[in-house]
Amino acid sequence: MRKFGIIGIGHVGVTIAYTLVTKGIADELILIDNNEGKAVAEQLDLQDAQARLDTTTQIKIQDYSELKDVDILFLTAGKIDAAKETGSRWAEFEFTNAMVKEVAPKIKESGFNGIVIDTTNPCDAITQYLQTSTGLPQQQVFGTGTFLDTARMQRVVAKQFNVNSKNIAGYTLGEHGDSQFVAWSGVTVNSHPLVEFAKQQGKNLDYAAIEEEIRKGGWSVYQGKGYTSYGIATCAVKLAQAVLSDAQLECPVSCYNEEFDTYIGQPAVVGKNGIEYVNHVSITDDEKAKFKNSAETIKSKFATM
Amino acid sequence: MRKFGIIGIGHVGVTIAYTLVTKGIADELILIDNNEGKAVAEQLDLQDAQARLDTTTQIKIQDYSELKDVDILFLTAGKIDAAKETGSRWAEFEFTNAMVKEVAPKIKESGFNGIVIDTTNPCDAITQYLQTSTGLPQQQVFGTGTFLDTARMQRVVAKQFNVNSKNIAGYTLGEHGDSQFVAWSGVTVNSHPLVEFAKQQGKNLDYAAIEEEIRKGGWSVYQGKGYTSYGIATCAVKLAQAVLSDAQLECPVSCYNEEFDTYIGQPAVVGKNGIEYVNHVSITDDEKAKFKNSAETIKSKFATM
Amino acid sequence: MRKFGIIGIGHVGVTIAYTLVTKGIADELILIDNNEGKAVAEQLDLQDAQARLDTTTQIKIQDYSELKDVDILFLTAGKIDAAKETGSRWAEFEFTNAMVKEVAPKIKESGFNGIVIDTTNPCDAITQYLQTSTGLPQQQVFGTGTFLDTARMQRVVAKQFNVNSKNIAGYTLGEHGDSQFVAWSGVTVNSHPLVEFAKQQGKNLDYAAIEEEIRKGGWSVYQGKGYTSYGIATCAVKLAQAVLSDAQLECPVSCYNEEFDTYIGQPAVVGKNGIEYVNHVSITDDEKAKFKNSAETIKSKFATM
Amino acid sequence: MRKFGIIGIGHVGVTIAYTLVTKGIADELILIDNNEGKAVAEQLDLQDAQARLDTTTQIKIQDYSELKDVDILFLTAGKIDAAKETGSRWAEFEFTNAMVKEVAPKIKESGFNGIVIDTTNPCDAITQYLQTSTGLPQQQVFGTGTFLDTARMQRVVAKQFNVNSKNIAGYTLGEHGDSQFVAWSGVTVNSHPLVEFAKQQGKNLDYAAIEEEIRKGGWSVYQGKGYTSYGIATCAVKLAQAVLSDAQLECPVSCYNEEFDTYIGQPAVVGKNGIEYVNHVSITDDEKAKFKNSAETIKSKFATM
Repeated sequence: MRKFGIIGIGHVGVTIAYTLVTKGIADELILIDNNEGKAVAEQLDLQDAQARLDTTTQIKIQDYSELKDVDILFLTAGKIDAAKETGSRWAEFEFTNAMVKEVAPKIKESGFNGIVIDTTNPCDAITQYLQTSTGLPQQQVFGTGTFLDTARMQRVVAKQFNVNSKNIAGYTLGEHGDSQFVAWSGVTVNSHPLVEFAKQQGKNLDYAAIEEEIRKGGWSVYQGKGYTSYGIATCAVKLAQAVLSDAQLECPVSCYNEEFDTYIGQPAVVGKNGIEYVNHVSITDDEKAKFKNSAETIKSKFATM
Repeated sequence: MRKFGIIGIGHVGVTIAYTLVTKGIADELILIDNNEGKAVAEQLDLQDAQARLDTTTQIKIQDYSELKDVDILFLTAGKIDAAKETGSRWAEFEFTNAMVKEVAPKIKESGFNGIVIDTTNPCDAITQYLQTSTGLPQQQVFGTGTFLDTARMQRVVAKQFNVNSKNIAGYTLGEHGDSQFVAWSGVTVNSHPLVEFAKQQGKNLDYAAIEEEIRKGGWSVYQGKGYTSYGIATCAVKLAQAVLSDAQLECPVSCYNEEFDTYIGQPAVVGKNGIEYVNHVSITDDEKAKFKNSAETIKSKFATM
Repeated sequence: MRKFGIIGIGHVGVTIAYTLVTKGIADELILIDNNEGKAVAEQLDLQDAQARLDTTTQIKIQDYSELKDVDILFLTAGKIDAAKETGSRWAEFEFTNAMVKEVAPKIKESGFNGIVIDTTNPCDAITQYLQTSTGLPQQQVFGTGTFLDTARMQRVVAKQFNVNSKNIAGYTLGEHGDSQFVAWSGVTVNSHPLVEFAKQQGKNLDYAAIEEEIRKGGWSVYQGKGYTSYGIATCAVKLAQAVLSDAQLECPVSCYNEEFDTYIGQPAVVGKNGIEYVNHVSITDDEKAKFKNSAETIKSKFATM
Repeated sequence: MRKFGIIGIGHVGVTIAYTLVTKGIADELILIDNNEGKAVAEQLDLQDAQARLDTTTQIKIQDYSELKDVDILFLTAGKIDAAKETGSRWAEFEFTNAMVKEVAPKIKESGFNGIVIDTTNPCDAITQYLQTSTGLPQQQVFGTGTFLDTARMQRVVAKQFNVNSKNIAGYTLGEHGDSQFVAWSGVTVNSHPLVEFAKQQGKNLDYAAIEEEIRKGGWSVYQGKGYTSYGIATCAVKLAQAVLSDAQLECPVSCYNEEFDTYIGQPAVVGKNGIEYVNHVSITDDEKAKFKNSAETIKSKFATM
């Protein structure tokens, strides 16, 4: 039986919930939110949907004790208005930090011992704080991090070559925030190394501009719809499925980096234990410097918490 | 190739879009909204999702000429604040009526000749108005109507007996609004006629209270989340799938009733031509009177447009 | 995590396996067969498929100890040639009975305590024998029984009225074999009672001929392809999904009947405990007599084991 | 509406059919086989399944005129016994060649103008023959070729490193037969170049042995189950989905190579036009020699037809 919990059912949390229900992925689903009326409403709306679906998901709300035997717990909370005003995910920190302080002891107390997937911003810092405050092993707590920024990189690069974003490989690394960067040395387009291939095709790519488009991908979506939901929820669900089926999925996520002693977006392998191991891919010295810089950014901001 | 269009990408429209994308149902999808920035943002967010999905959907925006060869067109617009203030879906009429006046000629001009599924409130009146103003055959234009209210009836009745809502059969009929009613004479629970079964089980059901809970199902969801999305989108997508695969799905939807010369929620069979035929089920004289009353309510309000 | 086991990977077993893999239903799957080479080959073929699927299923073979924490165990074995020669599923009894004698102690010894879904013929007798010999509670062991014959009834009746088989309700009851019968009194077509509706439509149905077509549905498929697989596997997977999600699915399956002290195809409700309860639907006296006759047929044949 | 045809419903063809039905991919499906009884039986079995599925697929049989507006046509035929006796797919040539000679004019006559996906062995030669004899453009006719052998490469390499086969990139190229080879220079494991990574990990890989295991992957499956079905059907369906959604999927398939004037397994991009273009990836001189050798093998055998 697949049992999921979601703490925080704003746009991201409830899109995760709907995805798990409409695709028949979850057998049981626990929704928890500070706004009880919202939890009741989402439960009703999802139950209305189920009379028209072939699959069934048991949906319960507001009960931390149910987390005891949950396999995957999503933490999805945010105060997007703060972020929007300043254009930085760190602006949400004050709010989300307080939220984690509130929920971490409750998670701990429930006896939960599954895998936590965090989408709360600033993702790297919050995930680390959550791991520390719950006392769960580092393996078991990770964030979506640059898995989404990598999807955006795939989308933006694909557009340049009129290919499918699924056929772009490579990584956006570092902070799920402004200090992130694309490791261009490893990006491929239909299996061709990007930089070389672009030259062959006579394309003069403006890498800085592309990177800015990726980095600001979230803000472009925010501006138009007031939040982001489908990209991030799809990333989170894919990670959850990898855990449940022990898929040993290789992808960039926010997890603990020993060298820099911080959570940060880096390639890792995701399976039944959560982070099975960090996948140390080759990057250039220049990219290493950017990674170090991003790690230090996360650490210094984290220190001010 | 399955090609869908959605006019109006508020909460309902975009949830339909996401469902078609995340479940791999749509090969091509056209999104149109008065708010261009919103259309751009939803397109981006859905494209971000696709790098993490196994299926691909081509998403285009804001181009009415693409409707020419669309198979299924969803019309989903609304001004929920108006509805919320007054507690009646007719309060949205002024806004949505104007919207239909604006889009109907554009649909017509595009050369569209597929099936329209309407979720816009007040659903029965707007669907009828849309059919008239586009000049499309009555078969090809129908509304979700009481398909959603029937799902709510299934949920509420199922709860009384601790069974799955899928195992409740029967209909909520009439207006997708206050004059709707449950045709209790045909409701079954695990194949048992409800009224008789409740007596056998020693359950003293308060049918009026249950009906009120069903009728106010939408408002309960509105109150908690500010809108409804998952139930209605799931109904709309199920109807679309029935059309595409010519499933001859029997279900209550808002379609033209000859006797009362109005669109109204009634059992019909949905297939490749849209409404294949109305399914005249037996109801009691009391239920017939309620149906007539509901039809007249729709007509009289429609006349004031 | 959803963990399934399949004992017997002939056409039915392996089609169940493929369905669980290709639809991403199973996280882990244990295949066991007397023919080890076949188990190895099916594992390889299913693994080849998985490089092209978005989901992952861990597939292990030939290890009874893995059944310890399996949620759902399918028993699917048969000697179809015996059945084909004689035209009766009882002809397989000698073979399948011996098979159950061999595997039941191994299931018991593994510490398995999940739900068993049996498709092995003669289904009612084998399921009962399996329950007795494993000592598992009656709730936890049931057979597909007339769930498939009911699907065939839906198909054959639907054809008469050019409707979708999903819109035919009602039951084929009794033995998954020659003494089965359709409870015509409860069959509905698009929510209309069949017998009355046929008259209204001026259709003069030959119920005996239709029933024979249903009863011989399996043989028609055997004759053309040498076995049956898709209908039966789809029924078995649907039941498994109902157990995993505690769906309280109401449907006819082979389970223990107290009145006649035998396993037999009858309406029941399927949930996390397997058979949650038998659903006693109204049938006519004539149908009751047929049910009794079918129960006695099963019992008398069972006694000769 | 998605409309598919399948000519030849042996193990591969019918597994494709079942996949399209059980996953709700096809709206309409035409099955054609020399053995009419088999076609009838598969139709019945798939229809029995559909009463238990949420989706509907219209299934018709034996009618070439239906191919007129089919989007995707699978050609799946074979005489596996011939292949098994000799251990070579060319042993099926006499039979399958005759089959193509028979069906090509019927396809042509139907007015079919969609995309053909061929799985018939010897795949490269038969696909070429089919293209020539139907007169369809080269783009519109391609074979699964080494898409399956690449899946096998992924499986076998993944096993060496205990990773998911989905995280192995690279190609098996050339003939879907004995002269195929793995382009090791482009194989990656979790984004690491294989050869280098194996050294780092202290793994002394026997590339020739691995390649033999890949090449003989089909025979291993044949030996155990008498045929292959799930891997090949999954490859074929994935290609079909890429065509329908214009996914621009990059993958190795059997398509026309200008340099060697033959069909052969090579990286290409698959979209709505079938083969959108050949994707010329870098390979070593040694690999180029193997590719040339494989092309010549196909051509010389083809010449003896």
